[in-house]
Amino acid sequence: METIQLSHGAGGEDMTRLIKQYILKYFPRFPSEVSLHDLDDAAVINGIVFTTDSHTVKPLFFPGGDIGSLAIAGTINDISVMGAQPVALSCACIIEEGFSLIRFETIIQSLGVTARNASVPIITGDTKVVEKGAIQQFMVNTAAIGQRTRILDKNFEVAGKRKKKWLQDSNLEVGDTIIVSGPIADHGIALLSFREGYGFETHIKSDVAPLNGLMETVLNVGGIVAAKDPTRGGLANTVNEFAEKSQVGIRINEDAVPIREGTLAACEMLGLDPFSIGNEGKVILAVIPEQANDVLMALHKHPLGKDAQIIGEVIKEKKVILETVVGGQRILEPPIEDPIPRIC
Amino acid sequence: METIQLSHGAGGEDMTRLIKQYILKYFPRFPSEVSLHDLDDAAVINGIVFTTDSHTVKPLFFPGGDIGSLAIAGTINDISVMGAQPVALSCACIIEEGFSLIRFETIIQSLGVTARNASVPIITGDTKVVEKGAIQQFMVNTAAIGQRTRILDKNFEVAGKRKKKWLQDSNLEVGDTIIVSGPIADHGIALLSFREGYGFETHIKSDVAPLNGLMETVLNVGGIVAAKDPTRGGLANTVNEFAEKSQVGIRINEDAVPIREGTLAACEMLGLDPFSIGNEGKVILAVIPEQANDVLMALHKHPLGKDAQIIGEVIKEKKVILETVVGGQRILEPPIEDPIPRIC
Repeated sequence: METIQLSHGAGGEDMTRLIKQYILKYFPRFPSEVSLHDLDDAAVINGIVFTTDSHTVKPLFFPGGDIGSLAIAGTINDISVMGAQPVALSCACIIEEGFSLIRFETIIQSLGVTARNASVPIITGDTKVVEKGAIQQFMVNTAAIGQRTRILDKNFEVAGKRKKKWLQDSNLEVGDTIIVSGPIADHGIALLSFREGYGFETHIKSDVAPLNGLMETVLNVGGIVAAKDPTRGGLANTVNEFAEKSQVGIRINEDAVPIREGTLAACEMLGLDPFSIGNEGKVILAVIPEQANDVLMALHKHPLGKDAQIIGEVIKEKKVILETVVGGQRILEPPIEDPIPRIC
Repeated sequence: METIQLSHGAGGEDMTRLIKQYILKYFPRFPSEVSLHDLDDAAVINGIVFTTDSHTVKPLFFPGGDIGSLAIAGTINDISVMGAQPVALSCACIIEEGFSLIRFETIIQSLGVTARNASVPIITGDTKVVEKGAIQQFMVNTAAIGQRTRILDKNFEVAGKRKKKWLQDSNLEVGDTIIVSGPIADHGIALLSFREGYGFETHIKSDVAPLNGLMETVLNVGGIVAAKDPTRGGLANTVNEFAEKSQVGIRINEDAVPIREGTLAACEMLGLDPFSIGNEGKVILAVIPEQANDVLMALHKHPLGKDAQIIGEVIKEKKVILETVVGGQRILEPPIEDPIPRIC
């Protein structure tokens, strides 16, 4: 009997296959601006941007964050990378009987503080408690709604004519510049190291952060055509999704991709590819080339974008190519799965 | 050390206390039409109705439904009982590694069919897989958005001046008529009986059903001022919430409350109070008395309302009173918890 495997939830090709083969056919297309079938970060219907995320991260508290900050940031980011303004969040907890009330309160506080700092209120919720063993400690779902703003319209005026009216993955064209907002792979490595006791986490912390403020900053500059937060499956998954959905290729300059020294060293020791490791406070932007430098400068002035880099460009040949430091080239494949389970 | 107990998620007084003492203080009030702090079925912000539900029902398949139909119906109902039209649903699955792919597909199909039959599309989703033992089989969160319609405005024109513009629990006034759309307690009893092997489930099935069509029918008649689906904690919890939030009392005529014979017999054998048992396809309406009979007639013409009954009225004295068949009176207390765990 065929069964569900961990890779089916790990943000790579296996997950995409599960969704395409077993889910989409039962959830038919429906007239909407951005559909489920677009497999984008959020959907849009009647002008309302809508997204959902269940969070099963293990452990619940980790260097740089906890399940509360992760849930709020992750869900705000899915709305923000569509170019929308997050309007409100929901919060649905599933708690194991016997879970410490103090830890519960700490998580709720973290959810609240992260939402408040991002200026997005939690306005609806649900609470379920299940018997011991039915769930490990605590999981939470956050969904969010967002709306269109004048900033996005202004941004598209600068970007010029495009197929899409939102920052969809399918909106890239040959010549666009690819920018990453900061160093990659910190979240996955910090979490893995802490969980397994490797010790790297003393200097590597999760990058978990809500990006709505940063997205507002770059949209105000104008010229952004697509955006995506490289969570499960990391940068490799994101640029491959961009390329496939836009029917283009992308050339990434490996040398230009920012990675902290400690994170890179940890990846090398553990035999992990930092390009496939999940992030929770980064965005990959596609920008018209004329605006790329202005967007980069704006990012550098923002606390969450100070290490941003131009890392590549959109090309005609339908491949994602990593140009290595020594001048070689290799295909950057979409990962089968994120190599680190339960990072979000 | 204090810990979370099953009763904290069981839809009664213990859950309300957890929410008030440990959650609301970290999720501050925010300007919105219907706030989290109203503890209503859904919230409303910028004209968007928003709600969320995590579903942990056990077992996943039960007489009359499964976790898929339950999730979609329950979430549509939370939007519908605000008087809003459901616009779209989200679907976020958490799956245990090793879960049968066929059972997964069956649940996804049920989610899809139930949504399609109710004419509400699933437009966004999330898929997480956790290792064996981290969750029991499968859980799913569905959130939904809804919007205001002309029907609701028309309904309120007929109802006359009220404090609230949505069908909020706090909108009852002395003299309003209380109506239930059909027999109570079937869902909880069917589920418990099937789970424990009592055998009643051969003739008692869950009432799980989306109520958006039925709500549209009664709103078209006009005069509805509040509505609530009596899920966890049952009718007893619903009428007590109505009474407390509206600062009124309610007198229920016990004899008038429809309960199927088999369900009543099962409750008696198991020592359970049918008024505290959860339903998943019923609504309690508060209606201005002038419209009560017309609303009842409209319900009787709808397949999900054919056994609807007028069961009571709103009174000044701030108590929920159950008038017993023999003419006696007793207070119908809000339940501490729903006596049957994991019904939704």
